[in-house]
Amino acid sequence: MDFFDVVTTQRAIRRFRPDPVPDVLVRRLLAAATRAPSARGAEPWGFVVVRDAALRAEIGRLYLQAWEAAGTFTREADADRDVKESPHYARMMRGADDLARSLATVPVLIVCCLDHARLGPIADGIGGLRAPGAAYASILPAVQNLLLAARALGLGSTLTTLHRVFESNLRVGLGLPASVEPVVLVPLGFPLDRFGPTRRRAVEEVAHLDRWGSPFVVRAGT
Amino acid sequence: MDFFDVVTTQRAIRRFRPDPVPDVLVRRLLAAATRAPSARGAEPWGFVVVRDAALRAEIGRLYLQAWEAAGTFTREADADRDVKESPHYARMMRGADDLARSLATVPVLIVCCLDHARLGPIADGIGGLRAPGAAYASILPAVQNLLLAARALGLGSTLTTLHRVFESNLRVGLGLPASVEPVVLVPLGFPLDRFGPTRRRAVEEVAHLDRWGSPFVVRAGT
Repeated sequence: MDFFDVVTTQRAIRRFRPDPVPDVLVRRLLAAATRAPSARGAEPWGFVVVRDAALRAEIGRLYLQAWEAAGTFTREADADRDVKESPHYARMMRGADDLARSLATVPVLIVCCLDHARLGPIADGIGGLRAPGAAYASILPAVQNLLLAARALGLGSTLTTLHRVFESNLRVGLGLPASVEPVVLVPLGFPLDRFGPTRRRAVEEVAHLDRWGSPFVVRAGT
Repeated sequence: MDFFDVVTTQRAIRRFRPDPVPDVLVRRLLAAATRAPSARGAEPWGFVVVRDAALRAEIGRLYLQAWEAAGTFTREADADRDVKESPHYARMMRGADDLARSLATVPVLIVCCLDHARLGPIADGIGGLRAPGAAYASILPAVQNLLLAARALGLGSTLTTLHRVFESNLRVGLGLPASVEPVVLVPLGFPLDRFGPTRRRAVEEVAHLDRWGSPFVVRAGT
């Protein structure tokens, strides 16, 4: 599939068909993930592919609790007041709600982890990060490769971080070593939702030339 | 270009030809960047395209200072002892040294920013982040799209975070609002170095099935 077709049609897929996802496809996603850059070339990533039904059921149960608590907080604090009138918001929230209610039955969950033991001076050795930007820049590009590769293979996925609410339980369930931080949870399966094209803010709105606020516009002949 | 060809040949390019980079190509990279996911669909990114020669010269000067200070620290603390015997390390460090010495003449620098004012409850409103993973997951996937799109268009780029050392100066130079965090600096130009294929740790070494330490292996017939 053409690169730009993949990039412009990749979007969050939150509803999945029950069909199993072949190991060979999972392996291709993970291989794509590992092509990403990382600080010091240390490749401080690890991926836990969760297929076990009991484990998915337990993660799904905790995820739904976390989702409901987050929803209560968001409503009470009106925390999404800046985005809730945007055209995508209602659709996104319905999808996220459906995902939370069905996570246990999504065929595969991939927990994308950052191993602090491979971060050298970027980690502080006691669970914290001296340079969080550089640390997360050594796992999140790999996650994006994974999401794009899923799209290229006709698989749906989405990037979630709500598992951080029940991180201690997740650590026990997956047997994560103390140095390993579960950064992103990616549900994966054949999509019920359709892929994009996606809609985004225009480049002109987010790009600046030399100075914030100075518009980047394509000059004639360049 | 085929998606998997892009992913498997994208690599850090740290030496550039002096040829100018057309605005239309820069615009295509930025359009690809904006297709990435973001928390709450808020698209909290901004990109400063630095073309001005005086600004690049100043950033280059500060970057080289930061690079030399980092080198002294790394040598004295032996901070890269865990990776310095790896096959790529010496080549990577020569490339990074060449980049630091020539940054002022790289045709374009793209400063990829995260606007905390668009993070809602993820930011704490006083410059910090309540959920750093979710925050950086709203800019670093966009950066990876940008690096991949550069590769697809025959442009070289690399992900750097060393500018954080002189962040206050950079903020002034680019006129960044207080809420805007410059997360990644991407040098961009036509490559002198060659693209990949890249070499990475094997999938078998980084993938686990259901539990950390339990090997993920492709089962026959799946």
